[in-house]
Amino acid sequence: MSFSIFAIAASVALQEAPAVRSPYAVLDEAPESAWTTIPAGELVVMMVGGERVVIQLNTAFAPTHAANVERLARAGYWDGASVYRVVDNFVAQWGFREGEEYNSRPAPDGVVDNPPADFSRPGSAVTIMPHGSPDPFSQLAGYENGWPVALHADGSVSPVYCYGTVGVAREGDPDTGSGDTLFAAIGTPPRRLDRNFAVVGRVIDGIEHLSTLPRGSGAMSVYAEGQSPATIATVRMMDQLPEGEQEKFVMMTEGSASFAEYAYLQRHRLDYGRGTSGADICSVQVPIKKLED
Amino acid sequence: MSFSIFAIAASVALQEAPAVRSPYAVLDEAPESAWTTIPAGELVVMMVGGERVVIQLNTAFAPTHAANVERLARAGYWDGASVYRVVDNFVAQWGFREGEEYNSRPAPDGVVDNPPADFSRPGSAVTIMPHGSPDPFSQLAGYENGWPVALHADGSVSPVYCYGTVGVAREGDPDTGSGDTLFAAIGTPPRRLDRNFAVVGRVIDGIEHLSTLPRGSGAMSVYAEGQSPATIATVRMMDQLPEGEQEKFVMMTEGSASFAEYAYLQRHRLDYGRGTSGADICSVQVPIKKLED
Repeated sequence: MSFSIFAIAASVALQEAPAVRSPYAVLDEAPESAWTTIPAGELVVMMVGGERVVIQLNTAFAPTHAANVERLARAGYWDGASVYRVVDNFVAQWGFREGEEYNSRPAPDGVVDNPPADFSRPGSAVTIMPHGSPDPFSQLAGYENGWPVALHADGSVSPVYCYGTVGVAREGDPDTGSGDTLFAAIGTPPRRLDRNFAVVGRVIDGIEHLSTLPRGSGAMSVYAEGQSPATIATVRMMDQLPEGEQEKFVMMTEGSASFAEYAYLQRHRLDYGRGTSGADICSVQVPIKKLED
Repeated sequence: MSFSIFAIAASVALQEAPAVRSPYAVLDEAPESAWTTIPAGELVVMMVGGERVVIQLNTAFAPTHAANVERLARAGYWDGASVYRVVDNFVAQWGFREGEEYNSRPAPDGVVDNPPADFSRPGSAVTIMPHGSPDPFSQLAGYENGWPVALHADGSVSPVYCYGTVGVAREGDPDTGSGDTLFAAIGTPPRRLDRNFAVVGRVIDGIEHLSTLPRGSGAMSVYAEGQSPATIATVRMMDQLPEGEQEKFVMMTEGSASFAEYAYLQRHRLDYGRGTSGADICSVQVPIKKLED
């Protein structure tokens, strides 16, 4: 098993083993019962510059956008598209640029042109962040089926933008954007996008293939003439791939004792030598890992 | 004039001009009186892979570490070192690796081996974040001489880790680490390092030359054998460079009306079509810009 992006940040100190248990130790020791398999039907595989980026769709929030993305992927809509805008400390954006050859490629049947803005909904089975701190953007932060969420004063719940969150690009009107142009957050969690831009998923493996792309030097960090954007060879649902190329991912159950311990250790980080004075939702996420053969 | 990292994040939507004033408009219009020149003696210039990375030293917090870094830069200590550890969504770390040829290079005169841990101090001229929200890691967040800081219940103030913050690597004991090995934050603000790892500065220009580096594939994301780390050609103080190669930077004064308006607009982001429900200190920083000839 190898750990994905949510679990790799380790101690900055290199020379000495931590004196106190690190949060990452929990990941090695958590029993199988602490993990849930992510359904293959939620997984999108994007091949960019020869590398694989795996996105988990968020079907609970913005379900119409998520269904659109699934339809577009199954139809091969993005094959030959590119990551054409990369803003340092903000987003990498992909699709077809305005005016590009394929910009007028018809969307496959069933894709809804402009799904209604759908940014929050009544909370259901929300687990409050254990040992958490106040969230600057809501009343409380927590998790719903493995996704980081914010709970608002009106009782609604919205998904949270963190590093790796995949959002739907749109025009000025919130009721625009089908999901044919997407972006992933690659810097400081852009929480200002919460409830402004639909969250359609998150990169759970291979985010570094987006975050290391050269930054665009044109207006709004779009790639300028002469800059070669990274080509997207294919985008498919995981279950469309030949069996030998399919991968399985599991996420830690937010209600498990393992996650409570992980969150406690991540909150306090006594392995750093001094206590930490708080925790934010993007830094204490449900760990996700890829199952190796 | 061109804007540096703190000002480039723009609207995700591309096709339509925002209907409401964007925070970035303030930067174009702020009067000269809203800006303060950053002293050249605070600026370190690191040449990495042919690109220029400019670091502003934080001489107020961890002054001994900052003085060490200045001495090391003036003496050319890091020439030939490398960025040998890059952790996605965490840090890029540079210096000489344990066991490297130059690891035993003597530090120049005056460098203090293990400055005492010095992570916070009594607050003095702190400006509370205008229109800010609760900070998960402290009582209140704000600014001191242009630096983002956290105010704690005991009256102390500590610098905040944001994207681009430069910290001092050390061993397990907080009282170790001279500043000869440094790291810059390149992902989610690692606030868990606040008051754990000395803040010695921040990258104010060229952070993308660190954040786009290939991630290390060895243990703890150190570059594995066969991965070529980015070579550091030189590190010098800005005022050591030939006059034609020197650059000037200004930062917006946190007490200015321009900054209050910028913070207000960044807090509300009505240009996104919907209001934002909060603001965090790392997303509302004092803008910094490079003066072009």
